[in-house]
Amino acid sequence: MSDFSRRSFLGAAAAAAGAAAGAGAAEEPRPRVLLHGDGVSLSPAEYAALLARLAQAPGITPDEYGLGGSVAEHEAWFARLLGKERALFMPTGTLANHLALRALAGGRARVVVQEVSHVYNDAGDSAQALSGLSLVPLAPEQATFGRADVERVLARTATARVESRVAAVSIESPVRRLRGATFDQGEMRAVSALCREKGIRLHLDGARLFVASAYSGLAPADYAALFDTVYVSLWKCFGAPQGAVLAGPASVLEGLHHARRMFGGALWSFWPFAAVARHYAEGYVDRLRRAVAVSEDFLRAVAYAPAFTVERVAGGTNVFRLRARLADAEAFRRRLAARGVDLGPGTAGAEGVVFPVQVNETWNGTTGAALAEAFARAV
Amino acid sequence: MSDFSRRSFLGAAAAAAGAAAGAGAAEEPRPRVLLHGDGVSLSPAEYAALLARLAQAPGITPDEYGLGGSVAEHEAWFARLLGKERALFMPTGTLANHLALRALAGGRARVVVQEVSHVYNDAGDSAQALSGLSLVPLAPEQATFGRADVERVLARTATARVESRVAAVSIESPVRRLRGATFDQGEMRAVSALCREKGIRLHLDGARLFVASAYSGLAPADYAALFDTVYVSLWKCFGAPQGAVLAGPASVLEGLHHARRMFGGALWSFWPFAAVARHYAEGYVDRLRRAVAVSEDFLRAVAYAPAFTVERVAGGTNVFRLRARLADAEAFRRRLAARGVDLGPGTAGAEGVVFPVQVNETWNGTTGAALAEAFARAV
Amino acid sequence: MSDFSRRSFLGAAAAAAGAAAGAGAAEEPRPRVLLHGDGVSLSPAEYAALLARLAQAPGITPDEYGLGGSVAEHEAWFARLLGKERALFMPTGTLANHLALRALAGGRARVVVQEVSHVYNDAGDSAQALSGLSLVPLAPEQATFGRADVERVLARTATARVESRVAAVSIESPVRRLRGATFDQGEMRAVSALCREKGIRLHLDGARLFVASAYSGLAPADYAALFDTVYVSLWKCFGAPQGAVLAGPASVLEGLHHARRMFGGALWSFWPFAAVARHYAEGYVDRLRRAVAVSEDFLRAVAYAPAFTVERVAGGTNVFRLRARLADAEAFRRRLAARGVDLGPGTAGAEGVVFPVQVNETWNGTTGAALAEAFARAV
Amino acid sequence: MSDFSRRSFLGAAAAAAGAAAGAGAAEEPRPRVLLHGDGVSLSPAEYAALLARLAQAPGITPDEYGLGGSVAEHEAWFARLLGKERALFMPTGTLANHLALRALAGGRARVVVQEVSHVYNDAGDSAQALSGLSLVPLAPEQATFGRADVERVLARTATARVESRVAAVSIESPVRRLRGATFDQGEMRAVSALCREKGIRLHLDGARLFVASAYSGLAPADYAALFDTVYVSLWKCFGAPQGAVLAGPASVLEGLHHARRMFGGALWSFWPFAAVARHYAEGYVDRLRRAVAVSEDFLRAVAYAPAFTVERVAGGTNVFRLRARLADAEAFRRRLAARGVDLGPGTAGAEGVVFPVQVNETWNGTTGAALAEAFARAV
Repeated sequence: MSDFSRRSFLGAAAAAAGAAAGAGAAEEPRPRVLLHGDGVSLSPAEYAALLARLAQAPGITPDEYGLGGSVAEHEAWFARLLGKERALFMPTGTLANHLALRALAGGRARVVVQEVSHVYNDAGDSAQALSGLSLVPLAPEQATFGRADVERVLARTATARVESRVAAVSIESPVRRLRGATFDQGEMRAVSALCREKGIRLHLDGARLFVASAYSGLAPADYAALFDTVYVSLWKCFGAPQGAVLAGPASVLEGLHHARRMFGGALWSFWPFAAVARHYAEGYVDRLRRAVAVSEDFLRAVAYAPAFTVERVAGGTNVFRLRARLADAEAFRRRLAARGVDLGPGTAGAEGVVFPVQVNETWNGTTGAALAEAFARAV
Repeated sequence: MSDFSRRSFLGAAAAAAGAAAGAGAAEEPRPRVLLHGDGVSLSPAEYAALLARLAQAPGITPDEYGLGGSVAEHEAWFARLLGKERALFMPTGTLANHLALRALAGGRARVVVQEVSHVYNDAGDSAQALSGLSLVPLAPEQATFGRADVERVLARTATARVESRVAAVSIESPVRRLRGATFDQGEMRAVSALCREKGIRLHLDGARLFVASAYSGLAPADYAALFDTVYVSLWKCFGAPQGAVLAGPASVLEGLHHARRMFGGALWSFWPFAAVARHYAEGYVDRLRRAVAVSEDFLRAVAYAPAFTVERVAGGTNVFRLRARLADAEAFRRRLAARGVDLGPGTAGAEGVVFPVQVNETWNGTTGAALAEAFARAV
Repeated sequence: MSDFSRRSFLGAAAAAAGAAAGAGAAEEPRPRVLLHGDGVSLSPAEYAALLARLAQAPGITPDEYGLGGSVAEHEAWFARLLGKERALFMPTGTLANHLALRALAGGRARVVVQEVSHVYNDAGDSAQALSGLSLVPLAPEQATFGRADVERVLARTATARVESRVAAVSIESPVRRLRGATFDQGEMRAVSALCREKGIRLHLDGARLFVASAYSGLAPADYAALFDTVYVSLWKCFGAPQGAVLAGPASVLEGLHHARRMFGGALWSFWPFAAVARHYAEGYVDRLRRAVAVSEDFLRAVAYAPAFTVERVAGGTNVFRLRARLADAEAFRRRLAARGVDLGPGTAGAEGVVFPVQVNETWNGTTGAALAEAFARAV
Repeated sequence: MSDFSRRSFLGAAAAAAGAAAGAGAAEEPRPRVLLHGDGVSLSPAEYAALLARLAQAPGITPDEYGLGGSVAEHEAWFARLLGKERALFMPTGTLANHLALRALAGGRARVVVQEVSHVYNDAGDSAQALSGLSLVPLAPEQATFGRADVERVLARTATARVESRVAAVSIESPVRRLRGATFDQGEMRAVSALCREKGIRLHLDGARLFVASAYSGLAPADYAALFDTVYVSLWKCFGAPQGAVLAGPASVLEGLHHARRMFGGALWSFWPFAAVARHYAEGYVDRLRRAVAVSEDFLRAVAYAPAFTVERVAGGTNVFRLRARLADAEAFRRRLAARGVDLGPGTAGAEGVVFPVQVNETWNGTTGAALAEAFARAV
């Protein structure tokens, strides 16, 4: 249920570490490496302090229902970053995906999705229930479907007794339900080419798109170029307390704030999350690439420790499982926390305790060697 | 596009036959064997003459919007035949399926269907577009899904971020898109047992259910007992110009005429099709069983003819393909027609002409041997 | 609940009359004047006999799901009669209205309607529930709204926080809930002019449009010219057992049979009701005009009878109330029936029994004087 | 389009005032009286500074998608304040209203609303378009409809051809489109009594409910007691950057966070706006009552100034219009701003410039006499 609600755990552990280390610890900014989350996972106090600092900048001016003020500039910045004409902030990724598909479909239509995708599993079937779209799930349990899969849907649809049309294809990458596995890049290009040939619109659920970029070396805009619209989460990677951005052509985005409001997504003020998201989005891919290097060093080093086994998924990104043979998992976590390393809680099984691990920019606060040593000592 | 619109073809051919046979032919009721259609495929004149005869019976009284009059008695008769508390006539099977799923779902929900089913492919996605249901397609290209398939959907649904529920399972059998293949009876029982255990409702799209009964020996009510609701077409097998019947428990059917009217399905008068459907439904299974025996004799006999190959599907019913190596397919059909045998048009291919063939009660107008001989002579 | 289900009552009464008159009565076509219904109200036997006769004509050929066959020609005929490019048969007026508004709206929109209209009151709110339209009701309890009323809706809509648009205006005339009162012709022209200026589409719910024509002298096509689409019932006036016709421009009607099928309205055969409707629609307005003359004669004559009071509505058409001071209302009806006059059941009140009366073409079977005399004698 | 986006105007004016007053002005908290807005209208810097202070309190802990953490406690606090079992935060009032009506209706139904209400005019018809509800608008251009109006809807609905039901009544009070006019309290009680008798649910759109309480002396919970559910805005009166609270019985609120998420309203973090809203909601009614006293003093005093005319609506609350005969309206506003009084921009007309004025708790920073004097001097 809880993705990474260990923010308070770290605080308590760090306080314990500070107490152990003496008064000086409180003055030094403590090292803080979070082995969970795609971003910095700010505490309320940290977020509020950052916002207070950012809000003093002259550029921060209020919007009204997301229109005007500094959010307009921030939307334009995200649009450029994603290589699109326009961008619009959304309160949630769920709404960003929904309104994108609704707009691309333009009425009753079929929309091709991955069977494991968020939009097919985790949005309460809102595309069907609220917008009357028919989602066609492909490639059960797989991150990738192929051009041939889409062609089969088109062929089937052409034989429908009631005329139907495939209006859009939606691709989620990386895929949350497959622990960060990415959609195959070759098939992504092939599907995109097919859709453009057939006049079918494309949407990218890129909630964690910037994570994929840090691993693949492809810029976010390179991915987005294969799609009409792209959604990126603002809280997963960019420290905002909430929010999402949807980017695409003006023909789709223009006036979409009306649909946003109709669905109840027109927050009175968007600027508080937009300011923070912009702050962290600048340079995010570069910072995460460095963190990835740290993590790869760590994984190589930890492979020598007999107590640990690392499990990665094919085509994966920043999500691992670390299986550890431990006498006392909680004591192990406390010892890591005392070294400024916040490991989320594990799940005990026959073959040891399994800890989900995510690489994020806080890994830049350490090195692979130091982290591996912290693990070894904490056993 | 056209299922079996060869009704006029037969008329023309029979007229030719009559002319060839001399004046006496017009007075004798000509033999008439239709190798297409699940029923008698009445011409307008035949239907109207039958209706005129039936309408003189004292039992035929008018309904108003499907309520009252003789349709009430006819609905009760169909309900008994299907082993259900109540039955309600519908203008079409599309509406019968839709209103059944809508009623069983009772609001936003997931409904499990076959990927090849009518409701998933051929109803314009109306369950999604109009009733906001989310259809979950299983078993691509197969007539049967298994209990384990349904269990996977339940397990997945239990992990949904937004609480969702699987409210109903719909099974079509025989399956039109698979040339009359039936859903495996063992899995049907297993799926039904699972659903009843989990509180999931079941709907049977039995458009051609009575055909399945003639092949399996199971009564329509035996099939229907595994389901909450069952729909049967009234025009496919029973000679009516239109119409369907939906049967099920009073708790579902009670008041469903309001939904029927809301959807625009409350015909002013239902009695004209109900009277004819009742006429042919009585004894249909027995008559079709005899016709099946004729057809099996024919298939055995025709297997010896080198010009013909028969193609049947696994688990199939009354639909075959007859592949024939012919010099002139149309001349062949004309010669059959002159013998009172109406074969629908074929599709020419590298391996000969393929004729779709359906067994129906008009086959009782001949014998397997006679029919095989007619084919042999018509080559 | 029941509009005019007295068809069996007449049969019984006529039989009694026949028995009283002796054997000869059975051979003569008995006079039959129905004081209810907008059309001939055929019994099942009468309808079936007529259909059998019509079906022998060479022009009747079967359709498939309403496509092809003689219905195509019948649709073209109705289109011409209504002055429109195209026409499409529908199973019910409820569906005809719904699909017209849905097509004219083209997605989420506001549709202006009369507060007393069928589409606002009697369709289960299907335009809202199934097609997401927002019906804006005007002129409570009135048949007519004005151009200024529509302008107020436009002005209000222009101030909406979420951009909205008024896409269509629907007018029902005559209005069933107002006992056949018609929409004021001057305002109808003014509303039409406003809508055309603003790009708003217009739909006419002309279920009983031909009745209005018989009273106003305006041809059905004259009314329809003010609208994009027009629906006319086929069973109310034209003796068909069911059905409706929707006429309009090809740009709206083209492909609308897909929506018809999606909603479950694609009957397998439309020809049986189309043939009968065509039969009675030819010359209907002329015949009803003559019947109207009979009825006006009757009303003038009956005004002299102290036992009767006639109540008509302003702007009304063929619906009256006849208030009668009677000792035994049922005996009165029986005596009328014995004279071949079928009066529907009345409602007893403090001021006498109120009988709803409708003028239809069966009134041509009598004269105003004869009818008034029958009433006088039956008291 | 813009309600009160003059937050930056005040800043600029206050800076000018500060510069004029010398260096000392920057150190003293300057007086700040806003004549617009229902609350304190914090600038970004002010909001962020407040949040930073609040976030250091131990009670602020993060939620996940609005669940857990300090928002749970804040929801419970609002529930108690509104006299309801449960409360749930929403990103917007639009969503709060929509989900309340959707939940109370429980499927296809009619919902009675004011013709001038937000839900009928300003939500993009989302209740109709997304949830298929049929909104029945009453009392055009009026704040209040009566019990008799509702009874007429019930009577009409009882005659519907397709069974329909009135499931809920929604009342907005004060009414934004009628400049803060309130729904008559006697009719509110009568409508509530009728609905409870008939099993019809009630929703209160109390976006500015706390404003009504300050004027009427009735506690928010006194109003809410007449309804099943009540929505209150968190940003209009309580300084939050966004957000709303929906309170009601557990039977409605339980599990409603799933609908919230389905609609795309599950912000990752609700705590930032919840903390600020709680801060200002405590004691709001008392503070506003004092401000109302200031405003009434001001209105009495300003009535003596020949340059000004005050326009109030019947049954109004904190919204006035001040009509002023001025040579230079902008200079007037600048002079007021220099005295720490922020008057929003006016609209020039034949009878002078009309300034919309709202009373809020910033009026406590002055007195009626002082404010009237500031106006007099600024002319």
